[in-house]
Amino acid sequence: MICSICRRFWDRRGSYREAAGRSTSVTEQTIDQIEADYDRCNPKQATLFVRKSVSYQTLPTPHHCHRVIPGTMLSSLMVKISVLSMGTLCLFSSIHSNLPSYIKADIAAPVLEPAVNNLRRSTLALTDGRREQQESPASLRSQVTADAMKYKSTHSGESLSYRVEISDSSENVLPSGFSKAMYQIDKSKRYDTCAIGAGLSGTVFAERSANVLGEDVLVIDARPHIGGNCYDFWDQKTGILRNQYGSHLFHTKMKHVWDYVTSNPNAPDWKRWYHYKFGEIHRDQKGSKKVDYVPIPPNIMTVNRLLDLDIQTPEEMDEWLKTVQIPCPEETGCVNAEQMAKSRVGEELYKLIFEGYTIKQWEKHPRDLDASVTARIPVVSSFDPRYFSDKWQALPGEGYTAWFAAMLDHPNIDVVLSTDFFDHKSHLEQVCDRIIYTGPIDRYFEQEGMEKLEYRGIKFTEERHFNHPGYLLPTPVLNYPGLETNYTRSIEYKQYLHRPSPHTLVVREESYSAGSDGDPYYPVPNQRNRELYAKYQVLAEKLEATGRIQFVGRLANYKAIDNALKLFDETAEARLARGRKKIQ
Amino acid sequence: MICSICRRFWDRRGSYREAAGRSTSVTEQTIDQIEADYDRCNPKQATLFVRKSVSYQTLPTPHHCHRVIPGTMLSSLMVKISVLSMGTLCLFSSIHSNLPSYIKADIAAPVLEPAVNNLRRSTLALTDGRREQQESPASLRSQVTADAMKYKSTHSGESLSYRVEISDSSENVLPSGFSKAMYQIDKSKRYDTCAIGAGLSGTVFAERSANVLGEDVLVIDARPHIGGNCYDFWDQKTGILRNQYGSHLFHTKMKHVWDYVTSNPNAPDWKRWYHYKFGEIHRDQKGSKKVDYVPIPPNIMTVNRLLDLDIQTPEEMDEWLKTVQIPCPEETGCVNAEQMAKSRVGEELYKLIFEGYTIKQWEKHPRDLDASVTARIPVVSSFDPRYFSDKWQALPGEGYTAWFAAMLDHPNIDVVLSTDFFDHKSHLEQVCDRIIYTGPIDRYFEQEGMEKLEYRGIKFTEERHFNHPGYLLPTPVLNYPGLETNYTRSIEYKQYLHRPSPHTLVVREESYSAGSDGDPYYPVPNQRNRELYAKYQVLAEKLEATGRIQFVGRLANYKAIDNALKLFDETAEARLARGRKKIQ
Ligand SMILES: Cc1cc2nc3c(=O)[nH]c(=O)nc-3n(C[C@H](O)[C@H](O)[C@H](O)COP(=O)(O)OP(=O)(O)OC[C@H]3O[C@@H](n4cnc5c(N)ncnc54)[C@H](O)[C@@H]3O)c2cc1C
Ligand SMILES: Cc1cc2nc3c(=O)[nH]c(=O)nc-3n(C[C@H](O)[C@H](O)[C@H](O)COP(=O)(O)OP(=O)(O)OC[C@H]3O[C@@H](n4cnc5c(N)ncnc54)[C@H](O)[C@@H]3O)c2cc1C
Repeated sequence: MICSICRRFWDRRGSYREAAGRSTSVTEQTIDQIEADYDRCNPKQATLFVRKSVSYQTLPTPHHCHRVIPGTMLSSLMVKISVLSMGTLCLFSSIHSNLPSYIKADIAAPVLEPAVNNLRRSTLALTDGRREQQESPASLRSQVTADAMKYKSTHSGESLSYRVEISDSSENVLPSGFSKAMYQIDKSKRYDTCAIGAGLSGTVFAERSANVLGEDVLVIDARPHIGGNCYDFWDQKTGILRNQYGSHLFHTKMKHVWDYVTSNPNAPDWKRWYHYKFGEIHRDQKGSKKVDYVPIPPNIMTVNRLLDLDIQTPEEMDEWLKTVQIPCPEETGCVNAEQMAKSRVGEELYKLIFEGYTIKQWEKHPRDLDASVTARIPVVSSFDPRYFSDKWQALPGEGYTAWFAAMLDHPNIDVVLSTDFFDHKSHLEQVCDRIIYTGPIDRYFEQEGMEKLEYRGIKFTEERHFNHPGYLLPTPVLNYPGLETNYTRSIEYKQYLHRPSPHTLVVREESYSAGSDGDPYYPVPNQRNRELYAKYQVLAEKLEATGRIQFVGRLANYKAIDNALKLFDETAEARLARGRKKIQ
Repeated sequence: MICSICRRFWDRRGSYREAAGRSTSVTEQTIDQIEADYDRCNPKQATLFVRKSVSYQTLPTPHHCHRVIPGTMLSSLMVKISVLSMGTLCLFSSIHSNLPSYIKADIAAPVLEPAVNNLRRSTLALTDGRREQQESPASLRSQVTADAMKYKSTHSGESLSYRVEISDSSENVLPSGFSKAMYQIDKSKRYDTCAIGAGLSGTVFAERSANVLGEDVLVIDARPHIGGNCYDFWDQKTGILRNQYGSHLFHTKMKHVWDYVTSNPNAPDWKRWYHYKFGEIHRDQKGSKKVDYVPIPPNIMTVNRLLDLDIQTPEEMDEWLKTVQIPCPEETGCVNAEQMAKSRVGEELYKLIFEGYTIKQWEKHPRDLDASVTARIPVVSSFDPRYFSDKWQALPGEGYTAWFAAMLDHPNIDVVLSTDFFDHKSHLEQVCDRIIYTGPIDRYFEQEGMEKLEYRGIKFTEERHFNHPGYLLPTPVLNYPGLETNYTRSIEYKQYLHRPSPHTLVVREESYSAGSDGDPYYPVPNQRNRELYAKYQVLAEKLEATGRIQFVGRLANYKAIDNALKLFDETAEARLARGRKKIQ
């Protein structure tokens, strides 16, 4: 059953029309009324995502979302299109089963046509009625509130409601990010390459295989979206582009990697962006609590501000470091992470910046962790505030997901989401000439009965601050090095590229020991795991020798790869060489 | 007439007492009730400032203010003490004419005693009933709201009212910042040195003269407070430490200057602080409006982000600069500020960062301004984000005014505020052995009938965002280099040293031609003014030759002195030499 009052849409010119083709102009129509109207609809209806993004290029604004709320799956549909942006456009429409003709007939505004055509295409491409996630009426309402907020000037003296909503990240609605994605493997097809995982690793291999080798490629991912851990989307409630699995900053020292990621003419532009963050340092001083916010990794400013010093040159900084560093025992070298850290930054910085953080991150005291954990903790001997020092640092202008979508948008590439490799392993081993496995290596060899590798997971807590037009944090990411909070860091996505919103969204991270249900994030760096991984590696290499499978990526190689592209581009080149031979 | 319901105060232990000496404990008393109670008082009562700060050291928190609202001047008093801080303490009290005994009798909390004793002293020291400024009931209310906000967790899901209030800076209540300040010259006294102006210049001279030379010193200022343009105070409505006349960042290359400002054991500590700011750059790109926030002065990050470059080293930066710089004509050199700017940063950066700003700042196109105006525009060939490059950069922990108060707190120094030199010129010329004049030089020689020097003034617009716990700007100061807004910059004082508040305060600056009513801020750098100033200088030097007067400081020397201390410390040393002779 479709609520007829929803069969309307509203655009910025204030017209408010019946969706059935007739149009009536209600110029005084306010957003609040629409909100109220929407409320009267039955919120219990299941929400189905149109598995297609509105094409970013054709819309005047980057911010968009659209959903299909089916009455009866695919036969009776209500579509809500909401294009939220810098206060320009808010469109609701609801449609019946004859979706395509309706859209053609009724939405004529040229600016919307491309969006709507996309929507039509994507709706037609809808191959199964699989239900994705419930859409809460609250989330729809707050979209409207967000937009309404932009129409009422905050400066008019009117008061808006500042409020904070806390939730965990599982409440999110996750669009697939890829219009052509399918949700079932076409069992009639054969493939040259099958990438297990639509993250950076799988996507790079898929794109290269299709474009350079002309191969037929299948990409499958257990998650309902592309992009792997880099996946981002426009937050429903605040209109902010945000990641789902923690913040990701692209950085590379290698020109060919940069050239590669920026080479796709259909992908949105990348924007130079130099990541920087502060740490929130708590301490007792002269009997009273003090909080300082200082650059992380520590640079000259950090040291001067925390320790009341006046270091002014890299030479002075290095000299000062030498006076505080505590060398490791000559006989043994640094045997644990505490010794290693102190040998690099001395007692005071270790205590203020590294000790508590390490404990929270690994749930172990640094003295019980491998020296390798702190072997590369950075200290910057200049005023350079950047988090990374790589030459190329950037963010994809319209988000990572849009970039992945452009990379995967190739006639030779099939993308199948919400599909676990292990449910189709024997089939895929038959129809795939070569498999690129980017999932956890211990999962692959589960039947061997070996122990599991230990991972750390991240618990995300989302804090939405409504009617808070500014920023909550002093920097896009704030680290919490101390034990006064369980959080390891907070991310305020709105600060990336400084996209405006009347609200803000802060995602706080806690580290925990990932069980079988959680997502594996960081491999635990200790001897047991290194030895165990080595055993898995032996198994993997044996299989790789057949030429039928390759284990790549963050999870398969059991390493946090700072720049996945680097590795995968290199690996890809090796495969390219093989591929070219095949073609010739 | 005193409103009896106001004769109460409230402290954090929830006790709510009658102020007349009896005390009744009302534990459930909410802040809202107090607020409501206060409202019922007669807001029409005149507000009189107790010309005394609560001593910063004795209070547990830096934030304080107190006022006297007289029924009949000085005979019937209602005192409101409000100690606002990080949510710890909010105290209202109202008292009758017998102020001192009341305070003794009723406020016993040890933490308050010093504050109250100060208040008593200052009230006793009240020498005249001069009315200062009206206290608006709204301002009192919002103090309460501010505190109430801290008691209700913003995270409880309750909604608070986010609202914006806009005002010009004249609405502020200005505490003198100095408890021992007087408001009338003691005509019976003689002085070795009389400093006209209680700004940096006058204060440094006064302190040195008193402490090193043992001189008797008079400091007078036309304004009702000490500190000159550096004056700051705790904003009544938001609880934020803020400047009244634009933001001031202490920075010096000279160790003896740093040693000097940090030498006073009674002054609060200085905190290292490295100023940084972004510019908000608007431009059209590929047909659409774009806004970027980039570091100012431009450094490598600025250039890379604006122009899609990947400069990575100082050498690359300098090389790139050479390719864009437009050399000035060889015969003439740079003849105006436009040529000069382009010769330093090239066409593109000039347009994006300097042209519009210069036009707004001086109301003249760069081509009509002296080359000197842009001769020192900085370009940073590194990733150093600091606004200044000086070795010592800091903020006084409890504010500039507290620092000035400590510097002036000397038995030999009399401070007289709200008193214009020219109303007492002939008297002072008789009783002062030497006069240090730090006011505008053209005002001093007014009777000569010469033309006036041209100054630019700053129009401040204050925006208070209530119930906005984060920051409104991406950096403490945001520059607006373009012509899309009249503002030249905005300052968000809360970001300095990251002091928390449930609200925020942004002060926006516009530049205008200062008439006789405005404050002179920036001397206009053109030929007419330089020539005119030279004439004034001749007059000044003639007078200075008598040894009876010295013209120093920002206004008297008609230069914006980046580091006033530097100059004045040097000058002071010359005088010290003379002084020592006198003592020997
Ligand atoms: C919190 C965090 C922050 C990071 N930040 C940065 C950063 O700022 N910059 C940077 O360069 N790197 C960063 N990294 C590293 C970065 O995440 C990796 O380099 C990159 O995402 C790895 O891509 P991937 O494809 O190997 O793995 P993933 O992105 O994890 O992709 C693997 C995919 O495989 C799928 N999969 C797994 N098993 C199966 C199965 N059985 N069947 C089907 N699909 C399966 C998963 O669902 C997943 O989508 C970060 C990592 C983490 C954890
Ligand atoms: C907006 C702005 C921002 C600045 N920012 C910085 C900064 O970040 N860092 C920095 O180092 N410098 C900064 N400066 C420069 C800094 O303000 C000066 O170096 C310093 O404040 C000068 O002190 P002063 O005592 O010479 O002048 P002032 O501070 O102007 O003091 C002069 C005093 O004399 C008084 N006076 C004038 N005439 C009379 C009279 N007839 N009778 C009695 N009293 C009189 C005035 O009321 C005033 O209080 C800034 C200047 C401005 C205008």
